Amino acid sequence: MKKRLIAGDRPTGKLHIGHYVGTLRPRVELQNSYETFVLVADAQALTDNFDNPTKLKDSVTEIMLDYLAVGINPEIVPIGLQSAIIQIPELTSYLANLVSFSRVMLNPTVKDEIKQKDMGNEAPFGFVAYPVSQAADILIVNAEYVSGGDDQVPMIELTRQIARRFNNIYGHVFCTEIEYIKGTFGSLPGTDGAAKMGKSLGNVIYLSDSNDSIREKVKKMYTDPNRLRANDPGTVEGNPVFTYLDAFQEQCGTQILVDELKERYRKGGVGDVEVKKHLTEILINVIEPIRTKREELQNNMDYVKAVLKQGTANWQNQAEITMQKVRNAVGLYSID
Amino acid sequence: MKKRLIAGDRPTGKLHIGHYVGTLRPRVELQNSYETFVLVADAQALTDNFDNPTKLKDSVTEIMLDYLAVGINPEIVPIGLQSAIIQIPELTSYLANLVSFSRVMLNPTVKDEIKQKDMGNEAPFGFVAYPVSQAADILIVNAEYVSGGDDQVPMIELTRQIARRFNNIYGHVFCTEIEYIKGTFGSLPGTDGAAKMGKSLGNVIYLSDSNDSIREKVKKMYTDPNRLRANDPGTVEGNPVFTYLDAFQEQCGTQILVDELKERYRKGGVGDVEVKKHLTEILINVIEPIRTKREELQNNMDYVKAVLKQGTANWQNQAEITMQKVRNAVGLYSID
Repeated sequence: MKKRLIAGDRPTGKLHIGHYVGTLRPRVELQNSYETFVLVADAQALTDNFDNPTKLKDSVTEIMLDYLAVGINPEIVPIGLQSAIIQIPELTSYLANLVSFSRVMLNPTVKDEIKQKDMGNEAPFGFVAYPVSQAADILIVNAEYVSGGDDQVPMIELTRQIARRFNNIYGHVFCTEIEYIKGTFGSLPGTDGAAKMGKSLGNVIYLSDSNDSIREKVKKMYTDPNRLRANDPGTVEGNPVFTYLDAFQEQCGTQILVDELKERYRKGGVGDVEVKKHLTEILINVIEPIRTKREELQNNMDYVKAVLKQGTANWQNQAEITMQKVRNAVGLYSID
Repeated sequence: MKKRLIAGDRPTGKLHIGHYVGTLRPRVELQNSYETFVLVADAQALTDNFDNPTKLKDSVTEIMLDYLAVGINPEIVPIGLQSAIIQIPELTSYLANLVSFSRVMLNPTVKDEIKQKDMGNEAPFGFVAYPVSQAADILIVNAEYVSGGDDQVPMIELTRQIARRFNNIYGHVFCTEIEYIKGTFGSLPGTDGAAKMGKSLGNVIYLSDSNDSIREKVKKMYTDPNRLRANDPGTVEGNPVFTYLDAFQEQCGTQILVDELKERYRKGGVGDVEVKKHLTEILINVIEPIRTKREELQNNMDYVKAVLKQGTANWQNQAEITMQKVRNAVGLYSID
């Protein structure tokens, strides 16, 4: 039997090549060897976008287009809409009793985000609570593997702890050996070299970008800031253009080309313009078929909607199976 | 149209005359003039009894017997089992985004309970969160009135704030002028004069107590600690025996008797034994018919179960109506 894997995204905008390299490409690679469940985490996104649900609603459609365009196969992968799976908050209400308040507050991802978003004491209670509801996302399908970014590691550890405690108190229901699956390549920096890509930072290449837009964005990409002329020796490490080239060399079979460019770059034997020309070609090779597929899907929105509806129904079925076990195990009064 | 009122209890044991005076008697008095919803809050009780669900399960039956025995009319009052109304955690997940983490932590009732129960940093996250889920209990039926003890006041204020914020952001769904209805008599002290009755304190008279047990408990009741002999002048104020007499004088038409006893007591004209004899009679008058009804119901548990099942179904219907409005108002992506 295939092991079960969960992955997901908050619908707060179209997906970009950072998502592609970090989580979408691995998801597509893994979907035949793992029983994969994908979650469009709109309820979680609402915790810090409660005053802008329209953005989330619109982004659900964008993300569905991205998913199907990159090759997630809805015939084998149920894509579920979190807010429609109400067994998730039900499970959250049980799990929340099994973790101390101070343990949730220690979560480094949440602490960082509260700081980044300058929320301070005004952080919504739902936002602070999201590691618990994320544990419910994982446990509601009893997943053994979680695919995602490095920020998932503390979340998964918390989920394991909660699952173990549940099993100890109420009897075995959950798999507790939940593991983190990382993509073969780490994360991509922004086009400006910043650690994260962000719409508000303007350092993003989207999976829906036109070839012209890709050309334009690569042209403006940061390289080695200490290099003034094409025949100065340059640094490859931490140079976003080379990080991008690395990210696609396996997928595009460009290893020899990239190795050669790196060698010349280090010696001052190649200019930024030429390196960027190669990267542009590679990115267009990757993104153009995705964008084309995306445009086809946009002309067939009934199909896209039906995929999400069916995927959500599959999630709900699985969630109800889990919750029947949970309710029996906890053993509160049953009205049936 | 009748105004809607909500009341409820955590099923952590049989109910006692403290509950009767503070919340059950008022509930029965109000049930014809308000559209009353009663909630058996087992999910909330689980937040600090997560390791003892059996106690809660057994207590649901006890509380149902108490409810029906005191005269709550299930023909007009739906009695719902909280854990079976999964729209409540769903609503909680939306409401949690509309209140800051620090605002929830300021709740004096939760702070007191954490202190009382010596939970410290180990307080379960679900326990700290319960004011938010209690707001969901009230708002899921869009109640305008809440009947309960004084500890409900900060909960209701929080509920009002959350309801106002919801309406401001998403459009009008909730009544925001939620009011607290107090019983005509305040709360009863324990038989030892302690402010609260508690099973662990051994200072409780249950609605299921036998006449002998009532006699025994009244005999041991605290009175005026400074009074040594029956002909010493005694103090009526803060004397639990007189507080109990006061609590039932209206219901039992014993005002003249109680006034006369107080006057004699103050002058040293009556002993504790005689006063307690009157109280015993009054308590037996109140409790005996409740206990008898309770015993009849125990022989008809199918009926009791059916009442809870039907009441929960009515709660679920109302909860679904509210959630349809909530989901539409928030306006996330809809799969339908």
